[in-house]
Amino acid sequence: MGGDFGPAVTVPAALQALVSYPQLELLLVGNPAAINPLLVKTDSVLRERLTVIPAESVITSDAKPSQAIRASRGTSMRVALELIKDGRAQACVSAGNTGALMGLAKLVLKPLDGIERPALMVVLPHQKQGKTVVLDLGANVACDGSMLAQFAVMGAVMAEHIVGVNNPRVALLNIGEEETKGLDPIQHAAALLRDVPSINYIGYLEANELLTGKTDVLVCDGFVGNVTLKTMEGVIRVFLSLLKSSGESGRQGWLMQWVKRWMKRRLIRQFGQLNPDQYNGACLIGLRGTVIKSHGAANQRAFTAAIEQAMQAVERQIPERIAARLDAVLPKSD
Amino acid sequence: MGGDFGPAVTVPAALQALVSYPQLELLLVGNPAAINPLLVKTDSVLRERLTVIPAESVITSDAKPSQAIRASRGTSMRVALELIKDGRAQACVSAGNTGALMGLAKLVLKPLDGIERPALMVVLPHQKQGKTVVLDLGANVACDGSMLAQFAVMGAVMAEHIVGVNNPRVALLNIGEEETKGLDPIQHAAALLRDVPSINYIGYLEANELLTGKTDVLVCDGFVGNVTLKTMEGVIRVFLSLLKSSGESGRQGWLMQWVKRWMKRRLIRQFGQLNPDQYNGACLIGLRGTVIKSHGAANQRAFTAAIEQAMQAVERQIPERIAARLDAVLPKSD
Repeated sequence: MGGDFGPAVTVPAALQALVSYPQLELLLVGNPAAINPLLVKTDSVLRERLTVIPAESVITSDAKPSQAIRASRGTSMRVALELIKDGRAQACVSAGNTGALMGLAKLVLKPLDGIERPALMVVLPHQKQGKTVVLDLGANVACDGSMLAQFAVMGAVMAEHIVGVNNPRVALLNIGEEETKGLDPIQHAAALLRDVPSINYIGYLEANELLTGKTDVLVCDGFVGNVTLKTMEGVIRVFLSLLKSSGESGRQGWLMQWVKRWMKRRLIRQFGQLNPDQYNGACLIGLRGTVIKSHGAANQRAFTAAIEQAMQAVERQIPERIAARLDAVLPKSD
Repeated sequence: MGGDFGPAVTVPAALQALVSYPQLELLLVGNPAAINPLLVKTDSVLRERLTVIPAESVITSDAKPSQAIRASRGTSMRVALELIKDGRAQACVSAGNTGALMGLAKLVLKPLDGIERPALMVVLPHQKQGKTVVLDLGANVACDGSMLAQFAVMGAVMAEHIVGVNNPRVALLNIGEEETKGLDPIQHAAALLRDVPSINYIGYLEANELLTGKTDVLVCDGFVGNVTLKTMEGVIRVFLSLLKSSGESGRQGWLMQWVKRWMKRRLIRQFGQLNPDQYNGACLIGLRGTVIKSHGAANQRAFTAAIEQAMQAVERQIPERIAARLDAVLPKSD
């Protein structure tokens, strides 16, 4: 029900995912009156792998998370999360209210043993054709050193099993590379990580290295992560809009016009790799279950990408692997 | 003496500035053996507005700021700052060690009355052809609410007198626009700013608005500001390098090749507005004197831009105006 477009995007995306992945089964949670009309023309074989779960109400995207959570009984978001808790689903994908989703997921699904707080994580493409796991992106505005170290371990598991990197490099985001730089929690996390031989901790990295591929995992608190990701998105949007509008005035012959249009399309496609619309789906990790947050503005293709992320996380047993890894490497902090 | 290129860049930049601004006088502080050879061919009229002030040693760019400051007596950086203190200069421009410059400037020049801590500020071009004042960029990694409110007042003075905006809009950088969002210092600063009628406080803005022109002043703590600016720089560099390398393979006729090169040059120029090399010079404000920090990698043109910024700040009496404004609007915090 969530996101800027609701079922008009999520239902076609669900159908597209069912076509692409024959082993997939989907539960669509929400208002049947809004969902069912979009399923009328669905192939009957496909329809068998799809169940509509009615939910009375919806948490709106502008609701205040704390209030929304208190009044969440019967909402599509809560019902979807409870399906995981009850073992009827392995993952939940939502384009709804981010704060409410994070809060409710923690409440309903509970963190894994050894995890104080779940974190929001994204996989960003970088300049060298690889990918960097970045977390936390806003689940926790303030973090202490042991939380950051836990994020690092979770990030390393994701880089290994989702991105497919052996012995992934793990860095802490900081404002300089020297050991004495930055805030206390970061320095504390660095000290913890240096003592964990199974984590390939490479030190601090500055924010200008976000897309250069110098690390496989980049760890920061949720405030800084949110600001970093949004700065990146904002700059990319400005670039794409400059690119689209560039050279629109000017009088040239048809050949020149055509060549320019062709080149612009090429460049937009190339830069589009870095466009936030293309790598949709932030993963809320550290919980007993998989929760994927889609961009609210996601289109059908982007929402399908979020469903694919959920499948990957389930198939690769991310929650279980995170729990096992944490147990092995980090002392419990009480 | 500072920066990646030392006098090879700073001396020609100084000469260029002298040519452009007949009222300007410059003191070049450093090793005469390195500076004088670059002045041999200088026009004698120009040479009269230029004095070489010998300094025994240099703070290297990789020196640890705290150690460098302790051993700073006689260094070019310290001598330059002391020239302001002694009334022999109105401003200091340096491409040297940022941490050492900020620390030494505070030590030698002292903060203005009502300022707890100076802040590092930059003027960024935005999408709507205007400019946004952003601070703090790293002078203070942790800030309380009253410091952020002081930064807001300083930023408003800069927007008014340097950018030329009447009644500039002032926003706090946060991870959401709702009042309850973000960290305590930000909420505290918001409460302080709402009570200051002479500041046009417009609320919180998210980092994706950095370049959209929604505000004239954007305030954050030094850690977040540093991460934001470096994220922006990193993304822009990746874009420019993608742009430069785009379509370099491929076999096309000479006409196509030529059109592509022409378009790339155009785009690079257009995006270049946002290139960090073009708006060189961060201003350390809140001190009894003007201090401009140039990028270490600045070329001659960029270093000249930093000298121009120093001139503007002096001509428009920025330190005096900041002091007056602060006195009028903010209660002293002890």
